[in-house]
Amino acid sequence: MTRLTLALDVMGGDIGPRITIPASILALENDPELSLILFGDSQQISPLLNNCSQSILERIQVQHCSSVIENNQGISYALRHSKGTSMRLALESVQRGEAQGCVSAGNTAALMGLSKILLQPLQGIARPALISLIPTIDGEKSVMLDLGANIECSAENLYQFAIMGAIFAEARLNLVYPKIGLLNIGIEEIKGHQSIRDAANLLQKSTALNYVGFIEGDVLLNGKADVIVSDGFAGNIALKTLEGAVRNLLSLFKDKANLRFIKPILAWLFRFVFKQRYKCLKRINPDEYNGASLIGLKAVVVKSHGSANVNAFAHAIADVAFQARQQLPEKILAGLARY
Amino acid sequence: MTRLTLALDVMGGDIGPRITIPASILALENDPELSLILFGDSQQISPLLNNCSQSILERIQVQHCSSVIENNQGISYALRHSKGTSMRLALESVQRGEAQGCVSAGNTAALMGLSKILLQPLQGIARPALISLIPTIDGEKSVMLDLGANIECSAENLYQFAIMGAIFAEARLNLVYPKIGLLNIGIEEIKGHQSIRDAANLLQKSTALNYVGFIEGDVLLNGKADVIVSDGFAGNIALKTLEGAVRNLLSLFKDKANLRFIKPILAWLFRFVFKQRYKCLKRINPDEYNGASLIGLKAVVVKSHGSANVNAFAHAIADVAFQARQQLPEKILAGLARY
Repeated sequence: MTRLTLALDVMGGDIGPRITIPASILALENDPELSLILFGDSQQISPLLNNCSQSILERIQVQHCSSVIENNQGISYALRHSKGTSMRLALESVQRGEAQGCVSAGNTAALMGLSKILLQPLQGIARPALISLIPTIDGEKSVMLDLGANIECSAENLYQFAIMGAIFAEARLNLVYPKIGLLNIGIEEIKGHQSIRDAANLLQKSTALNYVGFIEGDVLLNGKADVIVSDGFAGNIALKTLEGAVRNLLSLFKDKANLRFIKPILAWLFRFVFKQRYKCLKRINPDEYNGASLIGLKAVVVKSHGSANVNAFAHAIADVAFQARQQLPEKILAGLARY
Repeated sequence: MTRLTLALDVMGGDIGPRITIPASILALENDPELSLILFGDSQQISPLLNNCSQSILERIQVQHCSSVIENNQGISYALRHSKGTSMRLALESVQRGEAQGCVSAGNTAALMGLSKILLQPLQGIARPALISLIPTIDGEKSVMLDLGANIECSAENLYQFAIMGAIFAEARLNLVYPKIGLLNIGIEEIKGHQSIRDAANLLQKSTALNYVGFIEGDVLLNGKADVIVSDGFAGNIALKTLEGAVRNLLSLFKDKANLRFIKPILAWLFRFVFKQRYKCLKRINPDEYNGASLIGLKAVVVKSHGSANVNAFAHAIADVAFQARQQLPEKILAGLARY
């Protein structure tokens, strides 16, 4: 693995440094070629680094900043008042080339807005998007975009999402000619918004892209498409609905205080015997995976869940490292020329 | 229970009469005060009634018609060519007052379009909607609308959906002052389409309605709101995603050919010990419940899943009967005046 420095906004998320700092240490332990610049309140950060080994501390640089973009700030307010915030400073360090990628669990709209201004979209990309892996019930993975960056999308936007998604799936999932589907409310060609039907026409005309048709919400987990394309509103609703359903159903397997003795044992036995399926279930659990990538920018930026735990935030850091080492933005730029 | 006659389009759905006729017989067996008029191809219907008892046959009337609205027909084509189809004839019998409600598993857009033309929206309702019950993880129920009838909605449309949903929840779930939430991609007031934010403002101003704020996809099963309001596109995506996730996860509990001897036993044990939770899971299974109501019309119309099995289609028939006996359209009309 090549040496790499990433910039972290450690103030974002529901908890802040108490999650992001232990996660940073974990990520550094897992990746000896990684260095991190931590942007945030040094008074909160320093005590959390007390028990760190010297070899980890050598790869950490803390950049103090006292202001934070809040989750409830509107995009225009947040951008106007972004100067000196942990999120903006982290992105600026990527802009200056001091870091090769950025992670934040903060305000998604502000992260996308600032990234577009500071890092800029790749040439030819009208709208960067949020993309994430989703697992299938058979243990494979698909990618899905947009997950909330663009709530209204034209047919051309959706077409570009399909191209970016295909390149992401090729690099991230090691696929050749990935199947592309459009999220819609039916599989018949008359269904859905005009923009979706027009996007379907554009995709059908492209032989370089493996378009397989409309995909309904009920088969999101079934691997009908490797790349599921949607506007950011429907995509966000679908992903969160999926996560909520899985989280609720997984709660079945967890010990409950009011369960009798047999129940935890049975739940354990169930997990053991249905190991493969349970592993697949675990993979879909939002607490076990994390990180949506802002795709279509000149650098790698990953948005962590606001509610990410230590493992999940560490996973998001590893994800940025992987994409940066894979030179994903360069691959997308090359791919755009191909299609 | 009062005597009631319902009109059935028995040709709709993926299977047609082989599902809808046994379902009709089942519904009649369960409801001795119910009579049915079956609209469809008598050559397909008659053999399926061969083993019926006389007491059931007395409450069945078959109206032969040879043409059917196909699922892949666009709304304008379907409406232009609807004359003499099983769906249209069924709705016309409601229009003439021969039946007090209608069930079809056919083309949803055509059913909504024809219902609006033949049965007409209630006075003051701009857009009838599709509404359905969804279970919560605690064994309760919520209602959700619109599920696909209106893919683009104004703030006023969403506001009316909230009113209709509240009245539906009062009648159907026996609730007082039901909690109303708007489906959105975040809980902060700056999130989502302008129409949703405007609808939130309208709902906040109404003290007669118990508006609780934005609801994200991940808490759809958690009873945060009794009435979940959305445009038809996002609502359809959310409902189907929920159904797909549950159907996939429930497949865990089913016997598989390649499972060893212990697995079916363990699955059975699991079901037995986690009985209450499993019952709740079963309730959310789309194969166990069925039927979305067209709400805001002058008569009760229920759209069954195209893939409904016999039990599910029979459930949709019972649902129409319940709503017709409850005089739901009249309750909504009275409620509209109240708010």
